[in-house]
Amino acid sequence: MLVSGKHYRTIWLENDGNPVVKTINQLLLPHKFEISELRTSDDAITAIKSMLLRGAPLIGVAAAYGIYLACVESAKSKDINEFDKNVFAKAELIKSSRPTAVNLFNAVKKSLDRISKENSISAKIEAARNYAEELAEKEISYCEKIGEYGLEIIKNLSSKKQNKVLNILTHCNAGWLACIDYGTATAPIYLAKKHGLDIHVWVEETRPRNQGANLTAWELGENNIPHTIITDNAGGYVMQKGLVDLVLVGSDRTTLRGDVCNKIGTYKTALAAKDNNIPFYAALPITSFDFKMKDGLREIPIEERNPDEVKYISGKFKDEIIEVLIAPQNSPAKNYGFDITPSRLVTGLITDKGIIAPKENEIKKLMVD
Amino acid sequence: MLVSGKHYRTIWLENDGNPVVKTINQLLLPHKFEISELRTSDDAITAIKSMLLRGAPLIGVAAAYGIYLACVESAKSKDINEFDKNVFAKAELIKSSRPTAVNLFNAVKKSLDRISKENSISAKIEAARNYAEELAEKEISYCEKIGEYGLEIIKNLSSKKQNKVLNILTHCNAGWLACIDYGTATAPIYLAKKHGLDIHVWVEETRPRNQGANLTAWELGENNIPHTIITDNAGGYVMQKGLVDLVLVGSDRTTLRGDVCNKIGTYKTALAAKDNNIPFYAALPITSFDFKMKDGLREIPIEERNPDEVKYISGKFKDEIIEVLIAPQNSPAKNYGFDITPSRLVTGLITDKGIIAPKENEIKKLMVD
Repeated sequence: MLVSGKHYRTIWLENDGNPVVKTINQLLLPHKFEISELRTSDDAITAIKSMLLRGAPLIGVAAAYGIYLACVESAKSKDINEFDKNVFAKAELIKSSRPTAVNLFNAVKKSLDRISKENSISAKIEAARNYAEELAEKEISYCEKIGEYGLEIIKNLSSKKQNKVLNILTHCNAGWLACIDYGTATAPIYLAKKHGLDIHVWVEETRPRNQGANLTAWELGENNIPHTIITDNAGGYVMQKGLVDLVLVGSDRTTLRGDVCNKIGTYKTALAAKDNNIPFYAALPITSFDFKMKDGLREIPIEERNPDEVKYISGKFKDEIIEVLIAPQNSPAKNYGFDITPSRLVTGLITDKGIIAPKENEIKKLMVD
Repeated sequence: MLVSGKHYRTIWLENDGNPVVKTINQLLLPHKFEISELRTSDDAITAIKSMLLRGAPLIGVAAAYGIYLACVESAKSKDINEFDKNVFAKAELIKSSRPTAVNLFNAVKKSLDRISKENSISAKIEAARNYAEELAEKEISYCEKIGEYGLEIIKNLSSKKQNKVLNILTHCNAGWLACIDYGTATAPIYLAKKHGLDIHVWVEETRPRNQGANLTAWELGENNIPHTIITDNAGGYVMQKGLVDLVLVGSDRTTLRGDVCNKIGTYKTALAAKDNNIPFYAALPITSFDFKMKDGLREIPIEERNPDEVKYISGKFKDEIIEVLIAPQNSPAKNYGFDITPSRLVTGLITDKGIIAPKENEIKKLMVD
């Protein structure tokens, strides 16, 4: 998508003698647009952990590039067993860099599968690079498809409103910044804009990391989509007042019965949508399904992050980005990263294979690969 | 309640030759504890508008003191008609300083009623002062009563849990800082602690002004109540996980049919409580009822505050309290101050006259002055 009128992806590979993975530093957004370089697998791990890059599909691709970088590093040993040992050890570290997104585990697993099939170090390195590049392209095509299917929902609701402005509410960032391009929840929005539909997006700021205000508002602004930032608390009120026609969110992991694990606060937003008869859709590539799990609340491990993310917030002061304390120094805090929206609150799942009901018999049909 | 071990009220009158109303500057909390002086009615208006003091009962008392200060100022004219004209004009300004809390309008009205009954300027001034002082005492006694009634709920739930730690979740600040002492939603909590019950409070931070993190966590800490700050988004998750036994909030205005207007986000929290079968109580003195209104959503005017309260946040950096930008400079924001929790989501109302069902026939019985 566009940044200051120029097209970017969120991650890409370059080579300046050594391979270098380039990515947008999301920790500086919306205040500064800066490209970060990942030159080692440790750089990739740090980037994922620190949320320099985030979003389930992007984390997956970054993990795949991380394995590729681990391969390049491990090539020094010349011994293929040593090489495998090193790469598999790094892969474990990459896998443990974030606990929730299924994309991360799948990307690592599939990359290792590819590597294992090859019989020379150079072929293994090439396999890892190819997998990362293919995964990036795949994620983009998933988002394109999600955009096309989701567009139909927006078109239908727009025509019901006689083309009066359609208000879409979103939580967190399931935008192109979370993916490689287009985004999941935002793909239908960008496409609707392209088709000349009159839309407006309510952006819930999404505490504690404010990915809504920092990332979604920023990318919508850069791509000329009318939008308004509200606190997460205000999401219920705008629904009560009839100012929301559709809720569109992403998903980090969706279970076989359609429970949607997504950024903390999605559950409350879904409850408010249900209470006001507003359609609530999660947009996700089928790679974000976890077919092994049914009961999201019992089975999906929820990341507990550093409580300082609740007690401190980073923002711009004069020309610097600094962190300020926004709670009593001595009060404890807890920082749960995700929650579960039970399938009963979900109207539908917008996937790259079409829009499906959040029901086990429907989701089962996607279980091919 | 206690601050560094010393007992304080939130507002009191002193006289150093001129009358001076003293109040805790809530804009500096939790980082600095500082007493502000209100010497003129304009000081009172500015304090209410800027939220230097906030909370429905405290705003009411501050308004009553504001009228008293307006009387003192107007005494210079010596002409009783001129005096009345000045005071009534100031009263209008005081009334318009915040739009939602019914306490504000009632306090102004009742103070003016008292003033109108007197036939000399000095008697009018005294009537205004007496009213303010009486209102402060009344508010304290309301909170004491609320504490006693609410304690029964906590006792019952505790005994059901075989005295294992009882987890109470609260939103915003309905603490002693919002009142004159004890608080509304916190009164039962402080009393439970006094009775040796094992309690823990989840404090929703309450964006955008973070009264939960800044004020509730601070006052609970100063009074040795175990508590944990969470984002508003996480409130749903802790309920899903069975970590909440009771939700206790305040109310800025409650209608005849039991719709509860409270700080923005209360509605989402109430939905989550309902979805998890957790009792949801609003604690309020009967002065916070608005018997003229039934349908909260249609009838209660909701304050829309400066959007910069969403886009900027104040916090402590090194030893200074500063404001940082936490959103794209050019993105618009909206800042709704309150929402409506429909009576169907409310388990009960803890009032100074007892615990009552959020039903018109029950609430009607309170309609005595």
